[in-house]
Amino acid sequence: MNPLSQILQDVQSGKCDLPAAQKRIENLMFADLGHTKADLNRRERTGAGEVVFGQGKSAEQCAEIAKAILTRESGVLITRLSPDKAEKVKAAFPDAFYDELSQIMRIGREREKIENSHIAIVTAGTSDMKAAREAELTANFLGSRTKIYPDCGVAGLHRLASQIEEIRKAGVVIAVAGMEGALASVLAGMLKVPVIALPTSVGYGASFGGLAALLSMINSCANGVSVVNIDNGFGAAYNAHLINSKK
Amino acid sequence: MNPLSQILQDVQSGKCDLPAAQKRIENLMFADLGHTKADLNRRERTGAGEVVFGQGKSAEQCAEIAKAILTRESGVLITRLSPDKAEKVKAAFPDAFYDELSQIMRIGREREKIENSHIAIVTAGTSDMKAAREAELTANFLGSRTKIYPDCGVAGLHRLASQIEEIRKAGVVIAVAGMEGALASVLAGMLKVPVIALPTSVGYGASFGGLAALLSMINSCANGVSVVNIDNGFGAAYNAHLINSKK
Amino acid sequence: MNPLSQILQDVQSGKCDLPAAQKRIENLMFADLGHTKADLNRRERTGAGEVVFGQGKSAEQCAEIAKAILTRESGVLITRLSPDKAEKVKAAFPDAFYDELSQIMRIGREREKIENSHIAIVTAGTSDMKAAREAELTANFLGSRTKIYPDCGVAGLHRLASQIEEIRKAGVVIAVAGMEGALASVLAGMLKVPVIALPTSVGYGASFGGLAALLSMINSCANGVSVVNIDNGFGAAYNAHLINSKK
Amino acid sequence: MNPLSQILQDVQSGKCDLPAAQKRIENLMFADLGHTKADLNRRERTGAGEVVFGQGKSAEQCAEIAKAILTRESGVLITRLSPDKAEKVKAAFPDAFYDELSQIMRIGREREKIENSHIAIVTAGTSDMKAAREAELTANFLGSRTKIYPDCGVAGLHRLASQIEEIRKAGVVIAVAGMEGALASVLAGMLKVPVIALPTSVGYGASFGGLAALLSMINSCANGVSVVNIDNGFGAAYNAHLINSKK
Amino acid sequence: MNPLSQILQDVQSGKCDLPAAQKRIENLMFADLGHTKADLNRRERTGAGEVVFGQGKSAEQCAEIAKAILTRESGVLITRLSPDKAEKVKAAFPDAFYDELSQIMRIGREREKIENSHIAIVTAGTSDMKAAREAELTANFLGSRTKIYPDCGVAGLHRLASQIEEIRKAGVVIAVAGMEGALASVLAGMLKVPVIALPTSVGYGASFGGLAALLSMINSCANGVSVVNIDNGFGAAYNAHLINSKK
Amino acid sequence: MNPLSQILQDVQSGKCDLPAAQKRIENLMFADLGHTKADLNRRERTGAGEVVFGQGKSAEQCAEIAKAILTRESGVLITRLSPDKAEKVKAAFPDAFYDELSQIMRIGREREKIENSHIAIVTAGTSDMKAAREAELTANFLGSRTKIYPDCGVAGLHRLASQIEEIRKAGVVIAVAGMEGALASVLAGMLKVPVIALPTSVGYGASFGGLAALLSMINSCANGVSVVNIDNGFGAAYNAHLINSKK
Amino acid sequence: MNPLSQILQDVQSGKCDLPAAQKRIENLMFADLGHTKADLNRRERTGAGEVVFGQGKSAEQCAEIAKAILTRESGVLITRLSPDKAEKVKAAFPDAFYDELSQIMRIGREREKIENSHIAIVTAGTSDMKAAREAELTANFLGSRTKIYPDCGVAGLHRLASQIEEIRKAGVVIAVAGMEGALASVLAGMLKVPVIALPTSVGYGASFGGLAALLSMINSCANGVSVVNIDNGFGAAYNAHLINSKK
Amino acid sequence: MNPLSQILQDVQSGKCDLPAAQKRIENLMFADLGHTKADLNRRERTGAGEVVFGQGKSAEQCAEIAKAILTRESGVLITRLSPDKAEKVKAAFPDAFYDELSQIMRIGREREKIENSHIAIVTAGTSDMKAAREAELTANFLGSRTKIYPDCGVAGLHRLASQIEEIRKAGVVIAVAGMEGALASVLAGMLKVPVIALPTSVGYGASFGGLAALLSMINSCANGVSVVNIDNGFGAAYNAHLINSKK
Repeated sequence: MNPLSQILQDVQSGKCDLPAAQKRIENLMFADLGHTKADLNRRERTGAGEVVFGQGKSAEQCAEIAKAILTRESGVLITRLSPDKAEKVKAAFPDAFYDELSQIMRIGREREKIENSHIAIVTAGTSDMKAAREAELTANFLGSRTKIYPDCGVAGLHRLASQIEEIRKAGVVIAVAGMEGALASVLAGMLKVPVIALPTSVGYGASFGGLAALLSMINSCANGVSVVNIDNGFGAAYNAHLINSKK
Repeated sequence: MNPLSQILQDVQSGKCDLPAAQKRIENLMFADLGHTKADLNRRERTGAGEVVFGQGKSAEQCAEIAKAILTRESGVLITRLSPDKAEKVKAAFPDAFYDELSQIMRIGREREKIENSHIAIVTAGTSDMKAAREAELTANFLGSRTKIYPDCGVAGLHRLASQIEEIRKAGVVIAVAGMEGALASVLAGMLKVPVIALPTSVGYGASFGGLAALLSMINSCANGVSVVNIDNGFGAAYNAHLINSKK
Repeated sequence: MNPLSQILQDVQSGKCDLPAAQKRIENLMFADLGHTKADLNRRERTGAGEVVFGQGKSAEQCAEIAKAILTRESGVLITRLSPDKAEKVKAAFPDAFYDELSQIMRIGREREKIENSHIAIVTAGTSDMKAAREAELTANFLGSRTKIYPDCGVAGLHRLASQIEEIRKAGVVIAVAGMEGALASVLAGMLKVPVIALPTSVGYGASFGGLAALLSMINSCANGVSVVNIDNGFGAAYNAHLINSKK
Repeated sequence: MNPLSQILQDVQSGKCDLPAAQKRIENLMFADLGHTKADLNRRERTGAGEVVFGQGKSAEQCAEIAKAILTRESGVLITRLSPDKAEKVKAAFPDAFYDELSQIMRIGREREKIENSHIAIVTAGTSDMKAAREAELTANFLGSRTKIYPDCGVAGLHRLASQIEEIRKAGVVIAVAGMEGALASVLAGMLKVPVIALPTSVGYGASFGGLAALLSMINSCANGVSVVNIDNGFGAAYNAHLINSKK
Repeated sequence: MNPLSQILQDVQSGKCDLPAAQKRIENLMFADLGHTKADLNRRERTGAGEVVFGQGKSAEQCAEIAKAILTRESGVLITRLSPDKAEKVKAAFPDAFYDELSQIMRIGREREKIENSHIAIVTAGTSDMKAAREAELTANFLGSRTKIYPDCGVAGLHRLASQIEEIRKAGVVIAVAGMEGALASVLAGMLKVPVIALPTSVGYGASFGGLAALLSMINSCANGVSVVNIDNGFGAAYNAHLINSKK
Repeated sequence: MNPLSQILQDVQSGKCDLPAAQKRIENLMFADLGHTKADLNRRERTGAGEVVFGQGKSAEQCAEIAKAILTRESGVLITRLSPDKAEKVKAAFPDAFYDELSQIMRIGREREKIENSHIAIVTAGTSDMKAAREAELTANFLGSRTKIYPDCGVAGLHRLASQIEEIRKAGVVIAVAGMEGALASVLAGMLKVPVIALPTSVGYGASFGGLAALLSMINSCANGVSVVNIDNGFGAAYNAHLINSKK
Repeated sequence: MNPLSQILQDVQSGKCDLPAAQKRIENLMFADLGHTKADLNRRERTGAGEVVFGQGKSAEQCAEIAKAILTRESGVLITRLSPDKAEKVKAAFPDAFYDELSQIMRIGREREKIENSHIAIVTAGTSDMKAAREAELTANFLGSRTKIYPDCGVAGLHRLASQIEEIRKAGVVIAVAGMEGALASVLAGMLKVPVIALPTSVGYGASFGGLAALLSMINSCANGVSVVNIDNGFGAAYNAHLINSKK
Repeated sequence: MNPLSQILQDVQSGKCDLPAAQKRIENLMFADLGHTKADLNRRERTGAGEVVFGQGKSAEQCAEIAKAILTRESGVLITRLSPDKAEKVKAAFPDAFYDELSQIMRIGREREKIENSHIAIVTAGTSDMKAAREAELTANFLGSRTKIYPDCGVAGLHRLASQIEEIRKAGVVIAVAGMEGALASVLAGMLKVPVIALPTSVGYGASFGGLAALLSMINSCANGVSVVNIDNGFGAAYNAHLINSKK
């Protein structure tokens, strides 16, 4: 039985008065650490456990939040964790895995992997790899298998063409591209599965930190493209995993 | 056997010379109408038949394209078709269905509906209904069942709260909102399924024709949100259907 | 009697000639320090004493201005004062209080606190704390009691829900949020008091240094929201205090 | 006793089972009109009854919503109602009052006016009158007295100076200005009360439909200014009324 | 001998005094019509005769300028000439050719066509035809042969693939596309000739009247792309002709 | 003696009590027409009489304001007055002069013209004439002589070159240009007098209603350029007149 | 006699052949240093000698250009010269004057000062001093006397009021302000002389590096304001000097 | 015979089965280095060998890609290679040439130069030299001769005038300018050849990193201008070379 239903039933049956019920519900839902209310029933509610956004938090705060989550989950992911903060967090969790390119740390175990479907991550250029790796590690943590197809930008379509048959087998595709972001449209025109467009800040001049790519992807003339924030590999992977785990 | 593989085999076996093979492949793929190359194998390639974007095309062009598609498909959808153009197209297809609010015409049959999953379309306000209806008719045409939950904006969260349990049962959710577009974040924080955020141009002043809502949705602090273009009900539904039809 | 009226009366009665009157009025109003005209009758005129905006001023200038103000007020606040400049100012005012997170220094006493009403400061995430603290210290200095409710973002509404009853008791609420800024709308939809929306530059990608949050808040679909500049905790608190001190 | 508390008590005492309780709570809170969920307990929750935003709704929908609200309130306001729609709504409510300049309709009674405090509405130019009138009628409806000070722009400060003593007596001030929007800063530098800045789309060239005024007001160098959306007289008045009615 | 050199020689030889020389040079160069200085030696200077930009000029002014140019050239082109103005101009030039789609009028003869090279004009969709036609008529007038390849957008790359071999034979290519403008990058990745990218205002939502396409094209990851203004078919053709006529 | 000094002296000498003095000063300064406070001492204060900005005011309001000003001035100018409103105002002032191109009306006399210096108004193209004319009529009204040099855009520099010697004789130059606005830089590089850059909304595509020209002019690499708002011929002329009338 | 006229006369009289004449004209006009063409007749042409923009040039280049100019002028100004580059340039010109706040170096003498008129430089806040100083040193170099009025922002108008009578005596006024830039409008409403608005990048949040101030100033509701680029103290002073030196 | 045709013929003749054919085609086209798919037949396809964009790639990756390309080409260019990475790459290629100003490295030989035509590179100011040099080295590598004309900005047109006759002899011109970018328009108005406009990020204040120059160039009133990305010297040169090598 769902713990929340249990509490409501206890209210109805008189086992539990109202103030007590409210307290029980709160404990069920988050851990109040003062600076942060760690969301403990996110998996219950949204299908995926809490992931910590490391940017703007101190190493100490990250470690504390991780501890709170690990009371309920077998693993936790910290994104946007700079190398120097990562070192400090590792002091508390010596077995943690840290990837410098994407600045992601994983403490504890990844989930069981979904069997019958996986996520293809296609990048336009070598420099898009940072966002692609953030997506890969996130998806793996949440329970999806992934395969990265690097350097398939539209300036040399034959590179993409040679791999399109394999890409077609994925359950969902993440298109990672900066500059003009045309990769998402080209992919969506060739595939039967949803394409998550992940604009990156790769580029210069009038690319405006990824805005040109984002606008291009939002205006895609091909069907089946939806877009996440610039460089948001985590968000792309989260969406892709929700789709990939659909039964 | 896939018709393209057949042709390639015929090349290999000598049944077909190279120029003839090229011609056969082209005929398989699109009908050249002069002004338009109607895409006849889009269902083969992308899982959904050709849909006609009516804006910027004459009534005559729309009708011609529809005819070409109907040689291969049992139905065709024309979006952004103004009432006066719709009237002219109806002359050629008297049984066509036309919805004035969303300016969509359907000629022929909708697809068989997917059984075990449906799409929830949640709108922030009454004025978002136009985009929501475009999404609904598109999804129905492609083969997904839908349910619209109108007027659930975050200014009165109890309206949303009263229906959230039902919304949770959908396989994918479309969040339709103008103004500040907060609905997508609030929904994604409560759900285990992907949320397609559909910003609308509803609003005034510094809403900049939907840009404020789009930016808000792209920056969603909740996980599981991806975004389509402003007022692009068709695109939202197309994505949602791809997800909804995943097995 | 108001000192300005006194001077005008002296003009009328002939006690004071015109050039002398002008001089007296000026002395009443500001201290000319060469680089700065410290505003000495701001409390008279606007209800709150002069607060020094430290950014772009040298430590020496800050100290000099503070001294001029302290001839008339029992305390002075310096905002946006970097730690290295703070150290130098402290040499002149050893009893000064300095908060490193918000980079605010207070020299001398806070005002008497208003009794029957207080300000609630609600933040969306841990990283919004810097702006929230600036608001808190400013409001306290001006004479308002405050309570901070951290990490109540809309991605997990239950965290907000558990505290909303308490928040309702405030006389005015400051909603602090970066990213999509939806917190202001959600709060305003639940409250009978004015909500001051304080957008922060927390975020990345298409958040454009807080612009996305600002636009979202300006377009709020809920009634009762007004907005101050990005990261302007001081301004939010000043407004909130004016409201909180209304009788 | 608060009706919601009553229902919760009934659940606890067993008088009411859970599905029935949910239904009762919903009925208490909004009227589901199909296209719209009219918010019936907004006054309870936010201190002011439902006001209908007429733009994007048909005359029929406006009338229906008004009727639903009038079952609970003694008056209702419809904003952004074009003259032709107003005529149709008047057919259903012959006693309704309609103001063509601000395109506001009031059906039924205004609230009792607050006695000890009022709202000053100061405009920069004659062309800002439309937004000022929207603010005035809204504030009056909600229960605040108002006084408009037209044409006090900063290009001729003596016009403002001649009235500033009177303006000082207001409990809150709305500064209405297009073009460069400097009026808000100038007012805030002279007053002890909060200034709600209302940018208007008056202007041309690089005023970008009011954006220049909005940016100017958000960046005000004077303390005590907060900002609402461009031309949003309703929002300015709503905020001002919340402040004006504070005790 | 170049007429300008003649005049300078006459100055040197004493045949012509300075004021007279100045007058002769001016007469050589433009016709002063009061409202306009028709540029009569543009062909001399820039390789192409004067073309009249009709927008913002009256029908009378257009006709007068055309007459002045025809004293020196065998033909003249008027672009952006609305149908009603076209009618009036035709009264003066009954043999003029007018194309309603592109709103271009040609009076007199096209130039001799360049033999060994032509311009390919590739459009992404049917709605891009207006700009493509402006380009076609301009290029033809200036002396280049053209071929249009309509509806080759990247959402269905097979349509482009089937024609790429033929497109390769052009001396220069104009890529006409709205929405995300990806066509230019894809073409440039396949071709040995310069690609002039012509963004169009076709699209909706966040396409911002063609800005998204323009930014996308300016950021092209493929080499060999340069960009002209939105919907500027004339400019694209003028550039293409300069390249096409290079020997 | 200055009337204000007189009043102050009367206060000092006891001839006039304070409330009476305030009233006298106000009467001296503006006429309160209810909707408008007509600024009667603007000439005193700023060197030029009141000019009425007609946009957003009714014909009746314009006429009323004109009447109030004519009690003190021998002429008045109304700018941005549409033809239909102009007709109505003319009913009250049959001798008024109205120019349809620039939509300016002058009632009464122009000022005496300044003798030793004049204003040159140089336009880039025929379509910039509307703004140029607004500038011309304004400058003439205020008392400056003007000469317009039409169609001198940088695409054919010889047209400008032929007139530059004459332009050099002006006391100040207004450069009127849309599109890329390069004219201002080119002029300033050749002249010893201030150049007022007047961007116009002439153009299309990425000219964004004159913003491209404005940015170009603000970034001028030549010294001696300052900029007024897009299409603001009045403002350009007002500035130019202030400079031209400097002794 | 003007040296250019001399050369032309020599051509006419046969004293000088055409290639020699061209060479002589070029030598007259600039010194070709390879990297730079130092403009030697700018004073002749534009009324003010060459000033070197130091940003983006090496110390060596700056020194070389200065030397070339000093062959013709008695002084030269280098703007935007960082302290480390200044040190190197000083090695070549030990008597040079360098101001660290504004990063300006002057080598050689200032011009004779104009007697009967001066420039007032009014700043909104202490932090605007950097741009004000750049303006002051530039104007002094070019030959205008200046007086700075610091810290007169509109948040405390009495500070401005106390000095307005003195400011009125200037021949031209520079208004230096960041944030909302309202100072320019307020000043122009009180003065009979031209106001050069100089927006600064002082501010934070939505001030966008001075853009908010620039837009505000461009949209000024007061007459007599023209605008230069953000932080462009040099440009403001150059314009002001041209006006101030008008006879 | 074209190697691809050979493979297809081998398929037809039975010499090669399908999987083998696919492999052979891929090997022909790119080298898969894991992180990068080096494009080996770009010269075949687009007329110019692969050039490596160094930004965002490690020194090791750059060296590896260079090696792969050198198996097929006699030279390779690496752009945007910072000095520290350049040092590392030089360890592997001791004969490489590196230019610090433009951050370009060339390994191996430049192509044979085209004889009858060259590229003129005209810059507005000394600070535009960095982009100009990137263009020069790129064009030389691809096989075009170049000549740079530095410091010809429109603020002193005589500097440009003295060289225009020589510039006219080029086959194509690159106009390099920051600030207001007027140089491109002025050049195009004087030339018979295509002008590639290369905006640079030189400037400050409202130049927005080159955006003002880009907009100005896109809106050029002169014919024959097309634009590449800000600071994209490589792209400008690539386009120019394609044109210059046209026969």
